[in-house]
Amino acid sequence: MSGNTFGTLFRVTTWGESHGPATGAIIDGCPPLISLSATDIQDDLDRRKPGGLPSASPRREEDIVEILSGVFEGKTTGTPVSLFIRNRDVDEKAYDGLRTLFRPGHGDFTYQAKYGIRDHRGGGRASARETAARVAAGAVARKIIAEAGIEVFAFTGELGGISVETPRPAVRPAGPLYCPDPEAEQKMIARLDEARKAGDTIGGIVEIVVRGCPPGLGEPVFSKMDADLAGALMGIGSVKGVEIGAGFALARMKGSRCNDQMETGGFRTNNAGGILAGITTGGEIIMRVACKPIPSIARKQDTVDIFGNPTVVSIGGRHDVAVIPRIIPVCEAMVCMVLADHLLRQRAIQRGADHGE
Amino acid sequence: MSGNTFGTLFRVTTWGESHGPATGAIIDGCPPLISLSATDIQDDLDRRKPGGLPSASPRREEDIVEILSGVFEGKTTGTPVSLFIRNRDVDEKAYDGLRTLFRPGHGDFTYQAKYGIRDHRGGGRASARETAARVAAGAVARKIIAEAGIEVFAFTGELGGISVETPRPAVRPAGPLYCPDPEAEQKMIARLDEARKAGDTIGGIVEIVVRGCPPGLGEPVFSKMDADLAGALMGIGSVKGVEIGAGFALARMKGSRCNDQMETGGFRTNNAGGILAGITTGGEIIMRVACKPIPSIARKQDTVDIFGNPTVVSIGGRHDVAVIPRIIPVCEAMVCMVLADHLLRQRAIQRGADHGE
Amino acid sequence: MSGNTFGTLFRVTTWGESHGPATGAIIDGCPPLISLSATDIQDDLDRRKPGGLPSASPRREEDIVEILSGVFEGKTTGTPVSLFIRNRDVDEKAYDGLRTLFRPGHGDFTYQAKYGIRDHRGGGRASARETAARVAAGAVARKIIAEAGIEVFAFTGELGGISVETPRPAVRPAGPLYCPDPEAEQKMIARLDEARKAGDTIGGIVEIVVRGCPPGLGEPVFSKMDADLAGALMGIGSVKGVEIGAGFALARMKGSRCNDQMETGGFRTNNAGGILAGITTGGEIIMRVACKPIPSIARKQDTVDIFGNPTVVSIGGRHDVAVIPRIIPVCEAMVCMVLADHLLRQRAIQRGADHGE
Amino acid sequence: MSGNTFGTLFRVTTWGESHGPATGAIIDGCPPLISLSATDIQDDLDRRKPGGLPSASPRREEDIVEILSGVFEGKTTGTPVSLFIRNRDVDEKAYDGLRTLFRPGHGDFTYQAKYGIRDHRGGGRASARETAARVAAGAVARKIIAEAGIEVFAFTGELGGISVETPRPAVRPAGPLYCPDPEAEQKMIARLDEARKAGDTIGGIVEIVVRGCPPGLGEPVFSKMDADLAGALMGIGSVKGVEIGAGFALARMKGSRCNDQMETGGFRTNNAGGILAGITTGGEIIMRVACKPIPSIARKQDTVDIFGNPTVVSIGGRHDVAVIPRIIPVCEAMVCMVLADHLLRQRAIQRGADHGE
Repeated sequence: MSGNTFGTLFRVTTWGESHGPATGAIIDGCPPLISLSATDIQDDLDRRKPGGLPSASPRREEDIVEILSGVFEGKTTGTPVSLFIRNRDVDEKAYDGLRTLFRPGHGDFTYQAKYGIRDHRGGGRASARETAARVAAGAVARKIIAEAGIEVFAFTGELGGISVETPRPAVRPAGPLYCPDPEAEQKMIARLDEARKAGDTIGGIVEIVVRGCPPGLGEPVFSKMDADLAGALMGIGSVKGVEIGAGFALARMKGSRCNDQMETGGFRTNNAGGILAGITTGGEIIMRVACKPIPSIARKQDTVDIFGNPTVVSIGGRHDVAVIPRIIPVCEAMVCMVLADHLLRQRAIQRGADHGE
Repeated sequence: MSGNTFGTLFRVTTWGESHGPATGAIIDGCPPLISLSATDIQDDLDRRKPGGLPSASPRREEDIVEILSGVFEGKTTGTPVSLFIRNRDVDEKAYDGLRTLFRPGHGDFTYQAKYGIRDHRGGGRASARETAARVAAGAVARKIIAEAGIEVFAFTGELGGISVETPRPAVRPAGPLYCPDPEAEQKMIARLDEARKAGDTIGGIVEIVVRGCPPGLGEPVFSKMDADLAGALMGIGSVKGVEIGAGFALARMKGSRCNDQMETGGFRTNNAGGILAGITTGGEIIMRVACKPIPSIARKQDTVDIFGNPTVVSIGGRHDVAVIPRIIPVCEAMVCMVLADHLLRQRAIQRGADHGE
Repeated sequence: MSGNTFGTLFRVTTWGESHGPATGAIIDGCPPLISLSATDIQDDLDRRKPGGLPSASPRREEDIVEILSGVFEGKTTGTPVSLFIRNRDVDEKAYDGLRTLFRPGHGDFTYQAKYGIRDHRGGGRASARETAARVAAGAVARKIIAEAGIEVFAFTGELGGISVETPRPAVRPAGPLYCPDPEAEQKMIARLDEARKAGDTIGGIVEIVVRGCPPGLGEPVFSKMDADLAGALMGIGSVKGVEIGAGFALARMKGSRCNDQMETGGFRTNNAGGILAGITTGGEIIMRVACKPIPSIARKQDTVDIFGNPTVVSIGGRHDVAVIPRIIPVCEAMVCMVLADHLLRQRAIQRGADHGE
Repeated sequence: MSGNTFGTLFRVTTWGESHGPATGAIIDGCPPLISLSATDIQDDLDRRKPGGLPSASPRREEDIVEILSGVFEGKTTGTPVSLFIRNRDVDEKAYDGLRTLFRPGHGDFTYQAKYGIRDHRGGGRASARETAARVAAGAVARKIIAEAGIEVFAFTGELGGISVETPRPAVRPAGPLYCPDPEAEQKMIARLDEARKAGDTIGGIVEIVVRGCPPGLGEPVFSKMDADLAGALMGIGSVKGVEIGAGFALARMKGSRCNDQMETGGFRTNNAGGILAGITTGGEIIMRVACKPIPSIARKQDTVDIFGNPTVVSIGGRHDVAVIPRIIPVCEAMVCMVLADHLLRQRAIQRGADHGE
């Protein structure tokens, strides 16, 4: 129930600080007999690490995951899966100047207000480092839902004000920004470069697509599929907006246009984004999330220290210019976890083999 | 853990179908010694009922709440608070034609897919009727957070494409649509009337504001304050988009513009919407939600019956033209519940009187 | 998570005070398509009401249960089942003298210490009246597990020091005390009568048996089947001891005697009581619970008032002499709930029809 | 909610198999600003390791705990505390013969039935090895409750049929079996030696005492303090019976004898074991648990293999003769966790500093 645990039946707890010895995730509720190896997880983790982009953080995060429990001879056993990632290339002295300072746009002030203590090194628990553990756990969720035919991928929909002009893709695009529009992607890369040179950062929009989801997943009322997806995605550090299906555009539509009319075989349109009354329709689930610019900028900013005295800060160090593309596997991971959880919840209310049906 | 229960410490479970005998909510986890009477709750419930607008449903929903437990001599006792609302003016025969039909934009199809059975009368559990219980429970949450100095109100930010042009208000506006811009409100009312005449419905945007919230509420990582708010709001039937603070606009900002710089006494701007790293800053919490048009329209729509045969449906009966303004107390209720829950969670980690501090 | 909610997937929240207008239970997580009517529940409730025994409370508790939601045309719909029982024959003036008094053996003192307020009328929430709601919810659980072939019954194993000498029965015995040994039952009834005449009360032991439970139910480590059963049973007001299988006798056995050796087809003995390593074996689950005497006695007792001043109390009014036999359906209800919950949890980790296996 | 997670606010998830690379616990919900170092935990872990008794397992379990997160400069930060214990001296080949065999009294059969797969090496997850992680997490809980003045200790009350004849001690006894009666302890040691020579094992009874607990902890109805303690203790592998206060003896008492009468300053007796109506009275909390003999015995036993064929097994290897005394810190750990959890839950419903009281 605490803030570091996610899910009802497929429950993930992550732990670890940016500059502690390691980070990890425990999955309590992973079904047995799922084929699982570290390799299955490593692929997603590798997509999260800094790439060859000019915008990328030069921090060497070679995240190697180890499975410490819950897998026996290549299959999950139903007991907790402990995923362990050692922190490397930790340079805690780089943060000494931040011990008594609140960085604008970061959680420094709020962690201090909440707990009366904080690990100031690299943002401590509030660091995006924490998402490595989510990505690892999400990769396990992905294996579970893949067995049920569900695929999840995300792509860049907008970056630094440049939007994709091509149709929604059917698979994750291959480019460096996972952007389906190669022309837009080139402009985005230029925009990243400009921002880096200006000591600034930029925001963007990620779209996430679920294909092959059976109808019937999601709970009515509070734990609707869209509610859980929105909560999951808004729980990613940089995300400040979430929309499902046609989202905010629906606020300007008439009902006669918004309603997805039905015909034999399914729905004619998908303004609802694959979810009606909180439950999946069997159509594509479509989400868009707004990502704010990374708050660590080289430019000088006004702030205060922990005693309330005004001061100025300029954040050097190894930082990305945008959360895109590294946030893409994180968005996927959160969506995979929500789907795995709801898949198990749905199984629980279905009659199983235990009484001969 | 099931979908009809909300919250961790301030836990609300709602129950009831649109055309069943009653609906209600149980609050398990309400602290003791809160002054509480049915009158405290009735005010919020009354704001949810159909008003004098041309757009309003003529269904007579005089929701009278009864407190059946958990209150003794005007104060909560710490035991479960049972809130009970009898359904009145139920006309279940009106729905006979819908027994074998899936209405576009409604949960008919997805409930059938999920459960293999559904109460077709008025949408059953998927009816907006269910939100009466949320509003009642939210009113109790409101009393708890009011003791800590927290106020919550919502207002209409946009309806049928007409936006508010005036600044964000400091209290809930008084007009029929709770719209702070009287000129815009007049246009919105005209728009509602047009839509009603056309047998159609319209969407809009609600803004919710929290004032007086202390810093430090919210959990890191998964149960961030913004994650929980987004999940809570997206769990309202018509909501298809949520943004916090500057929301989607942040995707187009630079970091130097987005970051809220600090000075002695607080933050200079509030792009973050009062939440940093998932934890409240002490500033105003700002949310905007996109509401889709009501799916029940008089115009003819194509659909299928439960056997998959194509057919046509035109939904008569007593329906609103927009979820605004009746959704406004529902949005407030959800936000009050999230805040009450996090307030209690924060108290739990603070040293109390039990060891002399 | 609060104390009035039970279960993980089959979640029951009860509410209501002894002398409030009503009491009830909400089941969030009841699977759809279970046949359910008020009659199914009434039978268990009737076994809980005061019977024709000389020891029985003359309070007229004709508990009539109403199902207010979650059932449509005789079947559960998967939405919350609201069970409602109006309190009758409430005589709140009888308790005026107890407003400022702590009754020995009751929760008066501890409720006051915990909450700083208490509903003193008939024990308020701490009254055994609360168990009516449990029994109602347990009857729904019983229907779910019955579909999987599981039967639960309890019987009197000891009362006022008189033990059953006959073998463990295979069904619930029919007598007034649900005692399998008619000779012992006669002596027990005499013992009840003696105690009543002496203004005193007596304790006893209830045994609960589960038959037809499939192997594999229960979780390892913390939420073992025996842990959950023990917690469930110890959560009944009068219960102060629980043992599983041979229980405390195992503390005096050697391993060679205690171990249940196996042969083709199953286990030779059942010292483990049908549970190994927290998971059901498929054999009978055997539990025994120690029930303390009812604390409301007519004899004078020393106590203090809420200001700490010494005083004397003699509790008149309408009270039973022993919790047996009325506690028997309560024990059954708790066990049914635990089993229903674990049955659903087990289904969740089994591959279902959703991916063609 | 899965079986490897314990607690509501102080939430512990353990992970790890007997013969995997490591075992550990994550605490999500540890309050900030608690002084904590590995040394604080090591003391309890050391009491769990095999001692110098003739009955002790010769397996070298030097459990060295590492704190991987959640502590900064000697104090907890409020973020998850990850406790990590590497498995040493693992000899997995010793278990090759058990791959296709069900050992009597072990979870081999039930794990196979539940999951369709099991890690047969040393019992896998069902091994008592798992309790190392509980003891580590319990040591953190102990620090939290110690701040509120609460002390927890356990001692041997009976072993192999030999009972303690001396009064209940006020602190944990110092001897090798933590037995308060030195004469009985000598006989118990002899009994252990006899059993070891006979290739057999013995059971016993552990008593746990809580001192200094404030009144008011525990929830009414389902999550009563006694219910949670009973569930926690019954969730320890060998425990098959739990009683609170006078326990089973109460079943033979009259009400006039059982009730703890009150006088100015407190209760005259403590038959209730410090808990009334599920809530602590402020008096000593007294628990007794029945421990079955260890199922691994050298003597030949009949069993079946996983194909159902009858066979014979004799379990060699490195095993204790009784779970006492190594189970003593495990019992203490579970009780510490329950108390820490309820202490935090109680703080949540008390008005804190946030609104000036």
